[in-house]
Amino acid sequence: MLAFVTTTHAQATRHADAPPLLLGVAWYPEQWPEAQWDHDLTLMQAAHVHLVRIGEFAWSRMEPREGVYDFGWMDRAIAAAARHHIVVVLGTPTAAPPAWLTQKYPDTLRVSEDGVRDEHGNRQQFSFASTRYRRFAHDIAEQMAKRFGHNPDVVGWQLDNEYAADSFDPDAKAQFHAWLQHRYGGIDALNRRWATAYWSQTYDNFEQIPVRADHENPALLLDWKRFVTDTWRSYSINQIDAIHPHADPRQFITTNTMGWFDGFDAYTVHQVLDIAAWDDYVDAGEDYDWVDNAARHDLARGYKRRNFWVMETQPGSVNWHATNVTLRKGVVRDMAWQAVGHGADAVEYWQWRAAPNGQEEYHGTLLGADGTPVPVYREIQQVGADFAKAGAVLAGTTPHAEVAVINDFDGRWAINFQRHAANFDPVAELKAFYRPLRAQAQVVDVVSVHASLDGYKLVIAPALNVLTDAEAAQLKAYVEQGGHLVLGPRSGMKNADNGLQPQGQPGPLASVLGGRVAQFYALDKTVPVVGAAEQGSAKIWAEQLQVESPQTQVVLHYGKSNGWLDDQPAVLTRQLGKGSITYVGAWLDDGLLDRLTASWLQEADVHAPLPGAPQDVEVCVRGDARHQVVILINHAAAARRVSLPSTMWPVLAKGAASNEVSLEPNGVAVLDSREVAANR
Amino acid sequence: MLAFVTTTHAQATRHADAPPLLLGVAWYPEQWPEAQWDHDLTLMQAAHVHLVRIGEFAWSRMEPREGVYDFGWMDRAIAAAARHHIVVVLGTPTAAPPAWLTQKYPDTLRVSEDGVRDEHGNRQQFSFASTRYRRFAHDIAEQMAKRFGHNPDVVGWQLDNEYAADSFDPDAKAQFHAWLQHRYGGIDALNRRWATAYWSQTYDNFEQIPVRADHENPALLLDWKRFVTDTWRSYSINQIDAIHPHADPRQFITTNTMGWFDGFDAYTVHQVLDIAAWDDYVDAGEDYDWVDNAARHDLARGYKRRNFWVMETQPGSVNWHATNVTLRKGVVRDMAWQAVGHGADAVEYWQWRAAPNGQEEYHGTLLGADGTPVPVYREIQQVGADFAKAGAVLAGTTPHAEVAVINDFDGRWAINFQRHAANFDPVAELKAFYRPLRAQAQVVDVVSVHASLDGYKLVIAPALNVLTDAEAAQLKAYVEQGGHLVLGPRSGMKNADNGLQPQGQPGPLASVLGGRVAQFYALDKTVPVVGAAEQGSAKIWAEQLQVESPQTQVVLHYGKSNGWLDDQPAVLTRQLGKGSITYVGAWLDDGLLDRLTASWLQEADVHAPLPGAPQDVEVCVRGDARHQVVILINHAAAARRVSLPSTMWPVLAKGAASNEVSLEPNGVAVLDSREVAANR
Amino acid sequence: MLAFVTTTHAQATRHADAPPLLLGVAWYPEQWPEAQWDHDLTLMQAAHVHLVRIGEFAWSRMEPREGVYDFGWMDRAIAAAARHHIVVVLGTPTAAPPAWLTQKYPDTLRVSEDGVRDEHGNRQQFSFASTRYRRFAHDIAEQMAKRFGHNPDVVGWQLDNEYAADSFDPDAKAQFHAWLQHRYGGIDALNRRWATAYWSQTYDNFEQIPVRADHENPALLLDWKRFVTDTWRSYSINQIDAIHPHADPRQFITTNTMGWFDGFDAYTVHQVLDIAAWDDYVDAGEDYDWVDNAARHDLARGYKRRNFWVMETQPGSVNWHATNVTLRKGVVRDMAWQAVGHGADAVEYWQWRAAPNGQEEYHGTLLGADGTPVPVYREIQQVGADFAKAGAVLAGTTPHAEVAVINDFDGRWAINFQRHAANFDPVAELKAFYRPLRAQAQVVDVVSVHASLDGYKLVIAPALNVLTDAEAAQLKAYVEQGGHLVLGPRSGMKNADNGLQPQGQPGPLASVLGGRVAQFYALDKTVPVVGAAEQGSAKIWAEQLQVESPQTQVVLHYGKSNGWLDDQPAVLTRQLGKGSITYVGAWLDDGLLDRLTASWLQEADVHAPLPGAPQDVEVCVRGDARHQVVILINHAAAARRVSLPSTMWPVLAKGAASNEVSLEPNGVAVLDSREVAANR
Repeated sequence: MLAFVTTTHAQATRHADAPPLLLGVAWYPEQWPEAQWDHDLTLMQAAHVHLVRIGEFAWSRMEPREGVYDFGWMDRAIAAAARHHIVVVLGTPTAAPPAWLTQKYPDTLRVSEDGVRDEHGNRQQFSFASTRYRRFAHDIAEQMAKRFGHNPDVVGWQLDNEYAADSFDPDAKAQFHAWLQHRYGGIDALNRRWATAYWSQTYDNFEQIPVRADHENPALLLDWKRFVTDTWRSYSINQIDAIHPHADPRQFITTNTMGWFDGFDAYTVHQVLDIAAWDDYVDAGEDYDWVDNAARHDLARGYKRRNFWVMETQPGSVNWHATNVTLRKGVVRDMAWQAVGHGADAVEYWQWRAAPNGQEEYHGTLLGADGTPVPVYREIQQVGADFAKAGAVLAGTTPHAEVAVINDFDGRWAINFQRHAANFDPVAELKAFYRPLRAQAQVVDVVSVHASLDGYKLVIAPALNVLTDAEAAQLKAYVEQGGHLVLGPRSGMKNADNGLQPQGQPGPLASVLGGRVAQFYALDKTVPVVGAAEQGSAKIWAEQLQVESPQTQVVLHYGKSNGWLDDQPAVLTRQLGKGSITYVGAWLDDGLLDRLTASWLQEADVHAPLPGAPQDVEVCVRGDARHQVVILINHAAAARRVSLPSTMWPVLAKGAASNEVSLEPNGVAVLDSREVAANR
Repeated sequence: MLAFVTTTHAQATRHADAPPLLLGVAWYPEQWPEAQWDHDLTLMQAAHVHLVRIGEFAWSRMEPREGVYDFGWMDRAIAAAARHHIVVVLGTPTAAPPAWLTQKYPDTLRVSEDGVRDEHGNRQQFSFASTRYRRFAHDIAEQMAKRFGHNPDVVGWQLDNEYAADSFDPDAKAQFHAWLQHRYGGIDALNRRWATAYWSQTYDNFEQIPVRADHENPALLLDWKRFVTDTWRSYSINQIDAIHPHADPRQFITTNTMGWFDGFDAYTVHQVLDIAAWDDYVDAGEDYDWVDNAARHDLARGYKRRNFWVMETQPGSVNWHATNVTLRKGVVRDMAWQAVGHGADAVEYWQWRAAPNGQEEYHGTLLGADGTPVPVYREIQQVGADFAKAGAVLAGTTPHAEVAVINDFDGRWAINFQRHAANFDPVAELKAFYRPLRAQAQVVDVVSVHASLDGYKLVIAPALNVLTDAEAAQLKAYVEQGGHLVLGPRSGMKNADNGLQPQGQPGPLASVLGGRVAQFYALDKTVPVVGAAEQGSAKIWAEQLQVESPQTQVVLHYGKSNGWLDDQPAVLTRQLGKGSITYVGAWLDDGLLDRLTASWLQEADVHAPLPGAPQDVEVCVRGDARHQVVILINHAAAARRVSLPSTMWPVLAKGAASNEVSLEPNGVAVLDSREVAANR
Repeated sequence: MLAFVTTTHAQATRHADAPPLLLGVAWYPEQWPEAQWDHDLTLMQAAHVHLVRIGEFAWSRMEPREGVYDFGWMDRAIAAAARHHIVVVLGTPTAAPPAWLTQKYPDTLRVSEDGVRDEHGNRQQFSFASTRYRRFAHDIAEQMAKRFGHNPDVVGWQLDNEYAADSFDPDAKAQFHAWLQHRYGGIDALNRRWATAYWSQTYDNFEQIPVRADHENPALLLDWKRFVTDTWRSYSINQIDAIHPHADPRQFITTNTMGWFDGFDAYTVHQVLDIAAWDDYVDAGEDYDWVDNAARHDLARGYKRRNFWVMETQPGSVNWHATNVTLRKGVVRDMAWQAVGHGADAVEYWQWRAAPNGQEEYHGTLLGADGTPVPVYREIQQVGADFAKAGAVLAGTTPHAEVAVINDFDGRWAINFQRHAANFDPVAELKAFYRPLRAQAQVVDVVSVHASLDGYKLVIAPALNVLTDAEAAQLKAYVEQGGHLVLGPRSGMKNADNGLQPQGQPGPLASVLGGRVAQFYALDKTVPVVGAAEQGSAKIWAEQLQVESPQTQVVLHYGKSNGWLDDQPAVLTRQLGKGSITYVGAWLDDGLLDRLTASWLQEADVHAPLPGAPQDVEVCVRGDARHQVVILINHAAAARRVSLPSTMWPVLAKGAASNEVSLEPNGVAVLDSREVAANR
């Protein structure tokens, strides 16, 4: 069998039936009489569905009583799917324990920060730290692996579902104290680094430390997030250890994460997973913020720095917004192609068919509860037909970027604990930098500050609020080796303990920059920002910068505002050999940031693959100089024409090679630099 | 003695002194020295007050210590009132237990959904399910009945006060589990009907079922509301059983409900009560939404399908809004006449005199705490004088409607559990249909889906979200027998268990309609709706309809919007013999709904009693062809003239019979089709 | 040694080094290595800082283990400060107990109204009523006093920090019950005065009374606030009793209060303190509401009716707003001079240097965490230089007012418990009266209703909602002795038990006024108010007044509005000998109140010290006819010229005496009626 899941995932092997680009759905056979399964699978097959995810909420059916297992129905469901050329991802069902489990062992239930134990009736009611719960989770995962680890139609595993809810139960508290003890060694070190002399917080021992996620010392808050991260990591390992010994190596293991969700550091958790997979849900509306969604795909690709899966996405609408407006006709397909354009090898819709009852009755589906297709079924069927055409062309390709934006959980947490300016949303600020970069460079990576930066010509760290010495050293080395580094406002303000950098902002990079922050200002109105031939403004946040080296240049300064900022530097830059470091001390307006980005790209010698493409046409490129596939998505309400850098072959449409493409509203084009066999 | 309370209430008997239209007040003699009583009663008499409600918050005075009763003060209060020609409704005091009771028996205290036990100091602090509390409630009601059951000046009983607060105490939880067991027989049936395979909710036994009113399986949520309903019903029976053996049959038993309040199914609770009585409080402002209030009166009349009482209403203002604006001069009288116009036989103001202290010091009254009349006293005195003039004319009359709007608690609950579109308030949607109907048909009933629909030419079910097979069968029969049925959006979506109808919406009526809902859409902007000669729009909600029978006609369809709805049917109708069924798939704009309503009324051959009356003059009609009394209320800020269908005699004003009436702003006219003796 | 702290504080003695006008900062030596202290103190000295407050959050450092004390570091810190000519206020550290204390004695922890025990990690986590906590608080205060009570560099004591948080622990509950028993004698008296017959609240004993601060009988709510007040008073005495025996009488004792904060009656708590001191923080923005802040200074001066300290104020910005905008350049100095203009003898900035970690890292400071001055340092240094120049001139002076505004906690509480009109904020209403008074009279006192009113020509009681017979008698006597009294709306409505006055509003003053309130109206729109030559409006609240004496005149009446108010009296006045009483029944618009104020001042023969000064220039006067110091602060964005009543000498600026002054934007001038030595 040949690899198909992702070309970069060595263990994954191609299933005889499965195409390289997979259309999938979430299927809950346990909710329906077996006699209806074939009806559903036939309709899946007609829509070119080749993948189902099953099992992730079926613990009660798999283990109806403690230690009594029933997997026969799953055997039959997998076999039935296979008959329709559909492969399976199995979910471990630990996001929703059975009633018997939590009734008998209430200590496995999650406890909220306010001390309230959760109860049965919803999901995620378990404690992620409970030793007893992990034993049960290990056992059910192991039983599943023993049964399905060699099933040829099972291609991978999803652990649990959408890790999210912290717990403050006694297990979690004791583990947090032990975690702190391990991190700090002794209580004196903790007292010193947390500066507990403040407010007489001084601790005599680790047990005295309150376990909370809010209104505490910023050092404690940051460590709590790190502890939560490590706990989800070990929670994953617990199940991986149960599955690995019994499963073929071709079966990958992942979990499904949630966009910008910051409940844990996704880079750390992904260390123990084979591939990244995420659930792509967008804000309510007939349209979606496609640049935001593009960034989220790039974020997911950055977790493992290779192609990823969209494990869930919406067939038009969801049920958990206040008002669940459905995506306009055509936008579901547009989103599917955006995912692929950014490196997805599978796109899976949640869910296949409306459940007959339960909290999610109103969620979008492909089939109604009555088993008949709803209107969006046809549009997704079109996606399936597209994937069938384009799969071979895209096999083995992935996006390659020359520029990267740094996403850092420590910094996002630290700012969110202490916004200081209510509108300083660190994700919004990241996207303020991402937006012009995507428009001008077209292919962008979003990576951790710990990722290797080799090969990037330009790296932007939007608000790298927490900056450790090691991280600063890596960034310094990047610049010294010719890289171009741009730091956004609030960067380098905090040390590893979320304390203020003793050197002043940007901390260990101040000497590299040859400048520093004299004072920061939260803004409730805009402040003018000017340069030699430049006029713009800052909002939300402005830092008064100070030049401390003759080699450091003032790129922009503030106009007249609150007296303090008047005529003070707003943006500094310094050349270091072939590299450079730039510090942007304010949240600049979009136009200004757009023009600055152009100057940074020029300086770093970065060129867009399709220069001059219209702003509202998304350009995605997979592959490299040898073999390039361009995916164009028209997000405009009107038709658009796009010039190609060279003659390319259409993949979805019939037609001859051309150096220009026309796109209808919400139109998609896939173009191959090599001649496409099917179009000959 | 002759019946006076309501002509349709056989047991109620006329008190020698009491007029057929009663002006009343809530009086708290226990708050004042007995020496002051006569001062107050004299002022009541001067205002034509003939009714007081007493006792409903006086448990501490009636039973100062466990088992020790003191009713002497009530004997004297009732006798004192009688000397001023005032009859009495007695409230059982169970809405506010004494401190000694809840101190000694804390298990009788209410427990909130979050598990917090209520405490003394406010009211409604009891558990409605507590077995022990019911014993105390039974005993105090029985003691009262023994003392006052044959008192000729006591005309009826009010149980408790404004039933409202659920409890989640252990008694309530055990009873809910038993209730579920009784409903479903075995746990397997519950698992199947609740579809608990979803999220692994499967229960092994009834005790595992969480007892909550929020964030649970929709089936559980709906059953909780039904359990709450049955619990208030049995709570009522407990006291009725204590009163009946000791009370004259002429003494009616009721409780006072609260407009649109949906804490329980009021139809079920009213099964065990003699008459309906409600507390008519309006939103803060100088004016009130009189159409909303008209609908609430019609709702109350529909509980027992006969005349009702307004047990409380505001003498200008209340104290529980954020800003308690007082009704403009004249509006209090206007409201009193609206109540009568819709079938009230008594209008009682809360409260007579400002309490010297306590949470409601600021509430509107007729007398200040100092015992002197406040300005609104004169206006209410005018109401008393009106009632004295009109009582004889209105005796024995009630409104008679040819059209009905269905109010269904199951459906309202189901939608509120899962709004999907935040602004889809089912009461607002009901009123969207009620408003044009009231304007065009003038006399409208609001009834339960279980009420007999015989005699209605047109029935509108605004959002009959939950539709059981039995209900569907009754509606189908109504249409087949020549009735005209209009279903609003979201109708027939859910089955009795709040699960999705397996046939697709509108479920068991889809085959009758010859059409169905292909997909629903929550809207955040309007969508055009067009017909042959019609232009309008939909907001909040739009369903894409689908014709499935050649006899089914498209009345309206959508214009260009989100792609999915473009050119799709929005309103379908089908003739079945002399009857018809119409399905309105969207929340239409008011103008469109007004024109559609006209077409429905025309088709159903319904004619307004006073065609052509100005929109801002409310037309109420009591009586039938033999003897008709018309009540006109001018809600406009300017004078209005109204043409009468025939010559009628003025009842309040001196004057000759005429076929036209002039109304000042907030003016009221009562007109009799028979010559009025007093005006001769 | 000579007195310096305040000239009116007999015990306070001048420290050899300390100037009469003190610039200070909050310093936390415990947060820094001792080796860094001198660096900081040198920078303080350079900024003319002569005062530090230390110790108030250092309990863990003072008493690292139960009963083990370490004061050596404080000895050294005080000595180091003294070497830089800096005196010390010591804070007792009881606002933040050590971890060992609350871990071992969890009963000392605060319990919230919802029954949740607080925990370590923040501050104010103690129960203010805990007997055990008070023992610890006494001991640490006593140990400090023994150590520092005779230290010549320690000038005073601050008890705890910002008293604020009530506790509902068992100690507090038992004490409240005992407090009620003491107040009412027996339960029958309480039942009568609280009118507990209402809602069957009747109590059999004091233990049944719920202990809550919300949603209870208004009588209970008011008594709870009084109990809280008495508890903070005894909390203070507990520490005073520990300090006094061991401290020099020259060392004053105070605590730092918070502006309009109404958690307790500050007049009662100040009875046991030597001087008033408050923390002056303003709303977020580049500017501040200087009239509000002026009123807050006058409020603080009124606590002891002599000069006060600003114990904390912001060096530009704080960290606890949603968006912490920094004051515009120049405004920090402006605020410092406003404080002095209203009677401050010390202005202290919080805090000196950014803490290396902790919840307040982002708060404004003079030094960054890195030990270098931030921009505002220079501006505060200027304040220090100013103080050095002006200290001698201002020594011994204080403002003298002819007019007073009454601030009454009972009334503010009572209204806030029952706003009735959501926007009726009693502080906003007080300021509506204060604003024109300050503009026209320029020097204004804000005092308790229990203060002696001798010497005031005009007294305004904005919303004296609770009015006891004794208070009414004092106000009556004031009028009879020639005083001019103005009562605002809602005055005299409630008695001492927060019950409605049995005589009707304004209760015991109705007979003095010769008029009363017939009915009150909460407003959601404005109502016209007219007089002989007057046109204006009322908002939020309007009372329909009624004349009951031929000597009572209608000053203003309402125009056409809701029918009830049309043409009814809005403002009444009555002359009584040389005095007068005026009742303003509505919240009048600013213009109207401005003109009314002019008429009141004219009638009372009050004249502004600097008539005709521009509205946006604040005029402050310290001293009396013999020696007057005028402080002018230009709050305008443009320059202003101010005419002086006579030739005066500039104190801050070099220059000759003049009868006119020019002020730059945010400019400050200090002018002396006597020739200034330094300028000669």
